[in-house]
Amino acid sequence: MPRGFAFRVEARLGAARSGWLETPHGAVHTPAFVPVATYGAVRGVAPDELGALGAQMLLANTYHLHERPGEDVVAELGGLAGFTGWRGPWLTDSGGFQITSLAGRARVDEQGVTFASPLDGRRRLLTPESALRIQERLGSDVAMVLDECQPPGGDPLAARAAAERTLRWAERSLRARSRADQAVFGIVQGGQAPAARRRHARQTAELGFDGFAHGGLGLGEARALRGELVEAAASELPEAAPRYLMGLGQPLDLVDAIERGVDLFDCVVPTRHARHGVLFTGRGLLRIRTRAYTRDPRPPDPDCDCATCARHSRAYLRHLLRANEALGARLASIHNLRFYAALLERARRAIQAGDLGPLRRDVEAAALAGQAP
Amino acid sequence: MPRGFAFRVEARLGAARSGWLETPHGAVHTPAFVPVATYGAVRGVAPDELGALGAQMLLANTYHLHERPGEDVVAELGGLAGFTGWRGPWLTDSGGFQITSLAGRARVDEQGVTFASPLDGRRRLLTPESALRIQERLGSDVAMVLDECQPPGGDPLAARAAAERTLRWAERSLRARSRADQAVFGIVQGGQAPAARRRHARQTAELGFDGFAHGGLGLGEARALRGELVEAAASELPEAAPRYLMGLGQPLDLVDAIERGVDLFDCVVPTRHARHGVLFTGRGLLRIRTRAYTRDPRPPDPDCDCATCARHSRAYLRHLLRANEALGARLASIHNLRFYAALLERARRAIQAGDLGPLRRDVEAAALAGQAP
Repeated sequence: MPRGFAFRVEARLGAARSGWLETPHGAVHTPAFVPVATYGAVRGVAPDELGALGAQMLLANTYHLHERPGEDVVAELGGLAGFTGWRGPWLTDSGGFQITSLAGRARVDEQGVTFASPLDGRRRLLTPESALRIQERLGSDVAMVLDECQPPGGDPLAARAAAERTLRWAERSLRARSRADQAVFGIVQGGQAPAARRRHARQTAELGFDGFAHGGLGLGEARALRGELVEAAASELPEAAPRYLMGLGQPLDLVDAIERGVDLFDCVVPTRHARHGVLFTGRGLLRIRTRAYTRDPRPPDPDCDCATCARHSRAYLRHLLRANEALGARLASIHNLRFYAALLERARRAIQAGDLGPLRRDVEAAALAGQAP
Repeated sequence: MPRGFAFRVEARLGAARSGWLETPHGAVHTPAFVPVATYGAVRGVAPDELGALGAQMLLANTYHLHERPGEDVVAELGGLAGFTGWRGPWLTDSGGFQITSLAGRARVDEQGVTFASPLDGRRRLLTPESALRIQERLGSDVAMVLDECQPPGGDPLAARAAAERTLRWAERSLRARSRADQAVFGIVQGGQAPAARRRHARQTAELGFDGFAHGGLGLGEARALRGELVEAAASELPEAAPRYLMGLGQPLDLVDAIERGVDLFDCVVPTRHARHGVLFTGRGLLRIRTRAYTRDPRPPDPDCDCATCARHSRAYLRHLLRANEALGARLASIHNLRFYAALLERARRAIQAGDLGPLRRDVEAAALAGQAP
C-alpha cells in the first residue's frame, strides 16, 4: 500500500466484511457508499452538508475534469481536496467509461481510446499512461486504471480480447504510476462468464494492485448472474485488499454485493433519482411529484434523520421540484444520499453484530413495496 | 397598524432614517433589503443560510404561488412561514406586475386584470379584492394592493388614468381586507411627473395604509428624475409609516433612495447576477466566468465575510458556473445576498453615526470601477 494507506478488516460475516480504508485524506469506514461529484460538486450539495449526512469519500469523473477546468488547474489549486473544499478522500475513475458512453466516434486500439471531444470536436487520445497521469494531477487518493469494457450480450471472443487488453493496459498503468501517496486499483473484466472473470481476477491480482474493482457490471445482466460473477472474481482476489463495485446501484444491489465481500460502491442513482423527485425510504420509493403529496405535511421520510426530513414537508419538496426550483433537487439529494449513508452504516453494524438477515429482509421488502401515500 | 406590527424610527439623517419594522414573524431592522423568493425559495439557498447571511424578510410572488401550488395549499401548510421553513417575516406582491409582464394578452379594465395563464392558457381575472384575498391565504406579514403601472415614455393622460384607477383599487383593497394580523401597503403611482406623484401620494396616504410603496420606478427613467419622483411622493407620506421602493436595484439606487427616506427594498439583481456569474464586491462587479480567474486561488471577494468567500476560491466558483453545476449559482447567490445585507447594515450604522458620505463615495467608486483581475 502507498504511503498513508492501510486497509484493516475489523469484522467478517461469511464473505462480507467491515473495515477501515485509511487514506492520506482520512479514513473510510467500509462498506461505504461514495457519492458522485462529476465536476467536483454533488448536485447543489456543499461539502459541509455531505460530511453532515455521513459521506466519507467522493468520486470525481476524470474525463469531465480533464475537459473542464483541466487537471493542471486542479493541481495548481491543491488537487481535488484543495480545489473543491471536500477535504476528505477522493476517488477518480479512469475516464474511459465516460468517453465511450459520451464522446462521439470513440475508437479503441492497443494504444488507448481515441475520441472526438464533445466540447470542441477535436480528436483526443486517452491511454493507460495519460489516464493515470491525469489522476495523479487531480490528486485523488484512489486512482483507477483505464480498462476496456464490453457490454453484456456481445461476442464472447470480443469480451475475451477486451479482458486481455485490459490486463496489458493494467501492466502499463503500474509502470506509469509515479505518486507515492496515491493508491491504484485494478479492474476485473471478463464479460459474463464466471470462469473468465475468475481467470481475469487472478491475473489482475498477480500484477499487485492496492485494491480491485469489479468492472463492466450493472449493464443489464441478470441479478443472479451478477452475483455469480462477483463471487467468481472475489475468490481470486487477495483478502487484504479493498474491493470496489463500480457504478452500482440500487439498495438491493448493494446488499447482494456486501454479502460477497465488496467494500466500496459508487452510483449516480441517489442524486439522479432526487432530481426526478424519486426518494428512497425504508418503505420503498416515494415519488414526491405525484398529486398525493400536494398537501402532505409529513417529512419526506418520517424515519429519516437528514436535514431535509428534519425541516421540510412533502408538500414543500413536491412544490419545489415541480416549480423547478434549485432548492428542490438539493433537498432531495441530501435525503437520498443520507438514505444510502444510513443503509451502509446499518450494514457495517450488522456485519459487526453477525447478522445481515434483517437488513436484507427490509431492503427486499422496500424493493417490492409500492409506497403508500 | 395591525396586531403585532409597529414601526419605530431610531435615528434620522436628513430624510434618511433607520428603524425597526415589527411584524408577527419578527422584527426587521431598516433600511433593509428583502431577497426575492419567487416560489417560496431563493435560488438553491436554504432558510438557515439566508438567516446566516443577514436576510431578515423575504418576498414571494403572489401570482407564481397562486399558479403553483395555489394559495390554499400554502394556507393549509401554515402559510408561507410554515410552508417554506423561512419563519421570519414575509412580504408578497399583488401579482399584477408579474401578470402584465409574463402572461399573454393581459387586459386591464375597472374590474381588474384579465389574462391567459401561461400554465394552461385559461382566462383568469385578478381583482383588487382577489389579490388581497390570495395574499391573506398566503399569510404574508405585508401585503401589497393591486395597482396599474404605466411604463415611462407613455401617454401622460394614460398615466393619469392609471394612477386614478390605482387609487380606486386601493380603496377597494382596504374594504376587502379581513386579516387583523397582516399589514397592507398602498402603492404610489403617477408616472414621471413629480407633481402627479405628489398628488397621488397625498391621495393614497389619505386612505390610511399601514405603509407605502413607490411603484412604477426602475423601468428605464433617468436616475435624477427617479430621485425627484421619490422625493415628491415622500413629502406627502406620513413620517410614521414604513416606505418601500419596489423592484430596485443596484447598490447606488439603494443609497439614492435611502437618502430619500426609503426603508425597504427588493430586487432580483443579486440572485440573477449570481446565476450569470456576476459578483458584487466593494471594488465593483467581478465577472467570475472570465478566463482571468481560471487559476485564481483568492476568495471571490477578500473583504467579504460570507460562507462562500470563507471556503471557496474564484477558480472553483468559475469552474462550477461554467460547468453549469447547481452549487455554483447557490454559492454565488449567497455571496451577492450577503453583499446586499452588509451594504444595508453599513447604511444603518451610517445613519446612526450621522454620516452617509463615506458609504455614498464607496458605492459610487465601485459603480465606476472596472474590477481588476
